[in-house]
Amino acid sequence: MFSTVSVDGVVQRWEDLRLQDFAQGFFFGAGFFTTFRIDAGRPLFLARHLARLRGSLAAFPTAVRAPALALLLEDAVRDSLRRCLEADPLLGPDFTGVGKLAVSDGRVLCTFRPLAPDFESLHREGRGLDSVEPGAYRRAERTVNHKGLAWFRQHALLPRLPLITNEADEVCELPTANIFVQLDGALITPPLAAPCLPGIARAVLLDADHVAGLPVVERAIPLAELSRAQACFFSNAVALAVGVPQLLGQALPDSLRLAEQARAALEARALREA
Amino acid sequence: MFSTVSVDGVVQRWEDLRLQDFAQGFFFGAGFFTTFRIDAGRPLFLARHLARLRGSLAAFPTAVRAPALALLLEDAVRDSLRRCLEADPLLGPDFTGVGKLAVSDGRVLCTFRPLAPDFESLHREGRGLDSVEPGAYRRAERTVNHKGLAWFRQHALLPRLPLITNEADEVCELPTANIFVQLDGALITPPLAAPCLPGIARAVLLDADHVAGLPVVERAIPLAELSRAQACFFSNAVALAVGVPQLLGQALPDSLRLAEQARAALEARALREA
Repeated sequence: MFSTVSVDGVVQRWEDLRLQDFAQGFFFGAGFFTTFRIDAGRPLFLARHLARLRGSLAAFPTAVRAPALALLLEDAVRDSLRRCLEADPLLGPDFTGVGKLAVSDGRVLCTFRPLAPDFESLHREGRGLDSVEPGAYRRAERTVNHKGLAWFRQHALLPRLPLITNEADEVCELPTANIFVQLDGALITPPLAAPCLPGIARAVLLDADHVAGLPVVERAIPLAELSRAQACFFSNAVALAVGVPQLLGQALPDSLRLAEQARAALEARALREA
Repeated sequence: MFSTVSVDGVVQRWEDLRLQDFAQGFFFGAGFFTTFRIDAGRPLFLARHLARLRGSLAAFPTAVRAPALALLLEDAVRDSLRRCLEADPLLGPDFTGVGKLAVSDGRVLCTFRPLAPDFESLHREGRGLDSVEPGAYRRAERTVNHKGLAWFRQHALLPRLPLITNEADEVCELPTANIFVQLDGALITPPLAAPCLPGIARAVLLDADHVAGLPVVERAIPLAELSRAQACFFSNAVALAVGVPQLLGQALPDSLRLAEQARAALEARALREA
């Protein structure tokens, strides 16, 4: 993580931040966060990330101390991002990497990190998924619909990256991504009630309506149906889309191409929404 | 919270602690905590609290960075507790209140707070339970068996204090306590697989084997069975046992007396285990 951060829009050094100012986030995970891609200084889908943060704060008005709403408006965040990048020669106005906004204790904390070392290879080669985690999520459990600082359930599943299922053996998501499966002529992703995170990339693909000629559809995916999948990728706001060339022992060579097409759709949309 | 804390056994000021030293606990809830009662400088059931912390760390060896094991041995913790109390005139060697140990980022943080204002009245009058939270827990979900910094699911249910049930409509626990119900001549508490936290007070009562002449038993409690309850109390390490004089609309006048007897059993055991 880079030393330059911002708290409530004010550029600071990470090393100077006090635990006492983030106590509820620490002791209870009482806060939310979002992780976004920055390309050459440009944050992707920032408005969507902020809308989701504001939505989570509105859903838990007493449990999480919200910051002043003005601190989560797009212009304010864009401006503080710009000032952070300009303040740090290790970042710079053309920084490409990852930004994270964490909201807790009435504050907005913005931090930065480089892209993961495997970023390029993930796109080139994809990532096989070979395990299932059947014990974590409950159908319609609403905290999963929010990216909270209480992220331990997901954190504890890294780096295994299992497919998380609910008690009805339906696919929910991965710890760090939503999942899309090509089945029966459609591109299918589990509904929010699975439960799963309303991922930014997931939402953009649903808004896009069609990808690679396939209608994008939300519906429950029984784990057993994955054996009929023709292709598969997972999506998040940083990697956008990553192909799954092997899914629970089954080779899916079409996945890389499908992920590439999803990525192109996401990148095109990012430019339009900038 | 009091200003005097300890980190890795070293007395410090809460205001001086840096977020960077507790980053995994903050960003992911990747840590565990335990909250214990201190009576006149004496921590109750400290060995049990530490054993549970060590057990949680052992259950998640890669997800949570454990501190040096020596920092969680009873003598070391007792000693740093004593030094904290002696260092702060607002605490003092005869302090009665609440201690909290949080373990994350390879560190042990000990903090102190006074007893809640309603501590006395909770024992005298009990606390009615009039609501149910049916959407949070999944049977056998193992993270609930650990008191993690990712405590948001429970935190978000305060101060409502609902009975949390699983997808099979079985009673699990309250956000801050285990539950005991007098039914069919026994004192029954849900099993860990409900799921529920392996509470310290819960464990002591199970070890006690009988309370108020009733055998103490772990078994699944369907929500519907609560209408047959003759008495009810909830247990945690700070309040020990609190009577439930009204349970989902049903008056249970015997609850206060039963809670008093459970409290006496717990206090007696605390002295023996000191």
